[in-house]
Amino acid sequence: MTVTDEFLANNAEYAASFTGPLPLPPSKHVAVVACMDARLDVYRILGLREGEAHVIRNAGGVVTDDEIRSLAISQRLLGTTEIILIHHTDCGMLTFTDDDFKRAVQDEVGIKPAWAAEAFGDLDEDVRQSIRRIEASPFVTKTTSLRGFVFDVATGKLGEVRPAAR
Amino acid sequence: MTVTDEFLANNAEYAASFTGPLPLPPSKHVAVVACMDARLDVYRILGLREGEAHVIRNAGGVVTDDEIRSLAISQRLLGTTEIILIHHTDCGMLTFTDDDFKRAVQDEVGIKPAWAAEAFGDLDEDVRQSIRRIEASPFVTKTTSLRGFVFDVATGKLGEVRPAAR
Repeated sequence: MTVTDEFLANNAEYAASFTGPLPLPPSKHVAVVACMDARLDVYRILGLREGEAHVIRNAGGVVTDDEIRSLAISQRLLGTTEIILIHHTDCGMLTFTDDDFKRAVQDEVGIKPAWAAEAFGDLDEDVRQSIRRIEASPFVTKTTSLRGFVFDVATGKLGEVRPAAR
Repeated sequence: MTVTDEFLANNAEYAASFTGPLPLPPSKHVAVVACMDARLDVYRILGLREGEAHVIRNAGGVVTDDEIRSLAISQRLLGTTEIILIHHTDCGMLTFTDDDFKRAVQDEVGIKPAWAAEAFGDLDEDVRQSIRRIEASPFVTKTTSLRGFVFDVATGKLGEVRPAAR
């Protein structure tokens, strides 16, 4: 039995008390971009209820073309206007460099990824980088609020990242 | 007051009863790739507890270079081996075409996105497409289980997508 099978058994329990369906567009008009880290239960961290906000996640909670794609669809087709970015302390992305990662992949499989791994050395700076990438995109045009935070995995608290002089 | 402020107030409540920190690597060695849809509380749907699985999410739950990046980091640096893909009924990605979306963006801002919107017309087929993209990637090499599901937003149940003859 795999862990996947174990999770499917959990799903049967979940479905037994499920009430739905809810409407498709997020009722709070919010999109969250967060790290994929297992410790970040984004719905609990923000007190989100089902149906309230889009939740986009990836390694680091960074903003690449695919997050721009998701945000553009979220805003243009489903009416979100606020964006919340969440990075976190003790992030795996702080533990390596793009060069080392790509070299290790190339050494194993013989092919160097054409994409950036998006590792970073400073949490606040990478949150600001993500904010700037969204601001610079011509495709994310409906934003009324764009704020970035670092989640502390030791305390459960979100700390806001303030803009820095460049 | 924005909705973001409201969610930050929720976070203060969350932190008040928070116990941490947990270890960085996912304890169940699983990575989930799911749609960003607001109705998918992935932790509840799978009975996930904090710290157990990486959760990657985007518009559609599709697999592009950025999901390959996240999965490669998840497997190579943080030891996951099982992958669970989750699409869902009543998905926004079923309601438009890439051509229409790109035309609408171009008409508004004058620039046509260089990326695909990744809209799809058939849920099962797109889950299979996502599975094939992972199988075809040279960078996701540690997979011991790779299964795809459609979440029913009316019942809360996950239905497995079976492989189809091509």
